[in-house]
Amino acid sequence: MKKLMNKVDDAVVESLAGMCAAHRDLIRLLPEYKTVIRADAPNAKVAVISGGGSGHEPLHCGCVGFGMLDAACAGEIFTSPTPEQICEAARSTDGGKGILLIVKNYTGDVINFQMAADILRAEGRETEQVIINDDVAVKDSTWTAGRRGVAGTFLVEKIVGAAAEDGGSLGGLKELAERINANVRTMGVALTSCTAPAVGKPTFDLSDDEMELGIGIHGEPGRERVKKMTSRETIEYLANAVLDDLPFDEGDEVLAFVNGMGGTPLGELYIACGDLKKVLDGRGIITARSLVGNYVTSLDMQGCSVTLLKLDALSRTLWDYPVQTPALRWGR
Amino acid sequence: MKKLMNKVDDAVVESLAGMCAAHRDLIRLLPEYKTVIRADAPNAKVAVISGGGSGHEPLHCGCVGFGMLDAACAGEIFTSPTPEQICEAARSTDGGKGILLIVKNYTGDVINFQMAADILRAEGRETEQVIINDDVAVKDSTWTAGRRGVAGTFLVEKIVGAAAEDGGSLGGLKELAERINANVRTMGVALTSCTAPAVGKPTFDLSDDEMELGIGIHGEPGRERVKKMTSRETIEYLANAVLDDLPFDEGDEVLAFVNGMGGTPLGELYIACGDLKKVLDGRGIITARSLVGNYVTSLDMQGCSVTLLKLDALSRTLWDYPVQTPALRWGR
Repeated sequence: MKKLMNKVDDAVVESLAGMCAAHRDLIRLLPEYKTVIRADAPNAKVAVISGGGSGHEPLHCGCVGFGMLDAACAGEIFTSPTPEQICEAARSTDGGKGILLIVKNYTGDVINFQMAADILRAEGRETEQVIINDDVAVKDSTWTAGRRGVAGTFLVEKIVGAAAEDGGSLGGLKELAERINANVRTMGVALTSCTAPAVGKPTFDLSDDEMELGIGIHGEPGRERVKKMTSRETIEYLANAVLDDLPFDEGDEVLAFVNGMGGTPLGELYIACGDLKKVLDGRGIITARSLVGNYVTSLDMQGCSVTLLKLDALSRTLWDYPVQTPALRWGR
Repeated sequence: MKKLMNKVDDAVVESLAGMCAAHRDLIRLLPEYKTVIRADAPNAKVAVISGGGSGHEPLHCGCVGFGMLDAACAGEIFTSPTPEQICEAARSTDGGKGILLIVKNYTGDVINFQMAADILRAEGRETEQVIINDDVAVKDSTWTAGRRGVAGTFLVEKIVGAAAEDGGSLGGLKELAERINANVRTMGVALTSCTAPAVGKPTFDLSDDEMELGIGIHGEPGRERVKKMTSRETIEYLANAVLDDLPFDEGDEVLAFVNGMGGTPLGELYIACGDLKKVLDGRGIITARSLVGNYVTSLDMQGCSVTLLKLDALSRTLWDYPVQTPALRWGR
């Protein structure tokens, strides 16, 4: 295993410290809580908070800033943050308008965010949660009851964060988050395994001529292992699985998101994006917005995921809303 | 070799087409010339044009848009674009105020851009060139007389592009580009080799316990091959080589740029960024601006480079100037 790291045990907090040093105009670190908060927190708005295991950067801590999250807490690699971290993230950014927790559907995260919500409510803080489960690949999985939360989470955080910035109420934001989650679907593919630093060897074995379709973002098994396919074949498989699930219909407007798993170069992701556009055109789906890049990663895994979000006028406007975070910046 | 690709021969143009499909508000493709131009070209300003071998995405084609390049042409992987491509890029964006070509110092690029400049001048188009050679690692190299042009090129394109947007004259922009080039230094490290698609196997062999210090962005040899080091040791080596070269002095303000080589996840780049900040603090250098991410890549290579640019009031303002490209967006 070769990684740009010092001590493995320090990797998460050192990475967060580096991120905050690079973006000190936007964010700051609560190092003892491995939590990143907006530099201008708290604000007189609903505090939108997320978090999860590390190894998916820039999700979640890179999503903190104007128009997206107010705080995010980082667990160890592929491990949920603790209720204590989540509570501190909320306390540090609570502007008195309520707290919305955005949680990816993994058992550890669900339990710890639920405990945090209970504690925060006991402190008199109005708190709601939404569970994201956009991965169509498998029903239950290694670490999940029900579907996994994957790259769609990034879109939920952007859109709900914009609505919060725009003065949305806690109830309205929870409803919006649930609606976005209901309209977003994802499926991914691994070309190689990731290597967790504490383990030091690949999470799973994959031969030189194989791919894992429906891979989880921690390297959990997907739907099937197949012989290496072209980009076009791979993207058709993923896109069709996603399209048929919601289902998406002819004439629908979508945000098309090709997400890299961390080790795949941008040039390849753009090839995949072109192939996705062809599938969508062929089905009469309108690609109203696109996002291509490494946003919800799995350490150094090679591969990508395809996410489609059915847009309406509101979600499109909120997607376009100004945002200033390490991961996404535009419009202000 | 596993890559998200269809036919290897189509990879470059398919990748460009995917990029242009994802960013059709900003850019469009001249497919027969593998050239990306601004969607609103030509503009009544100096046309700033670059290009080079593919495999370094988002450089150069992802740098086209408001506040950066007017056009960029893509050669095959690690191969210079032809004079014909460069001329067409210039003709398609020439707004009558002159053409500035930004060229990385590789023999093939230098020859082809020079030929293009001669042709463009013969057509009556005022044309200037600047050669970027920021890599301190080696004097001459496999494909270079003198120093190589690497990640510093991205900073030159941003700053000169801003000045062009702001109405700079051809002579003024050429002088500015030369001044930025004179104040920027880079050195990189490879943890793994890249794999060029047409070759199908790693460009060079590197054992599991080795790193190549001073690597070139095509996998050319660097200064020395060493046993695996920590991020801190690696970044100290790179940063000290860079700092001592210009040299940078106590009290200097810099833009600190940690650039990923394509296969290194963002979480690790932020660890490197934190380590770089410590070196700079220790030398009394002021980190006025930071940039961290995969901007000048080498296909799927794991590793990073450290670039420092000495800032003055003008270059800092131009760095902050609004930009709207696939690679960089802010401020408008």
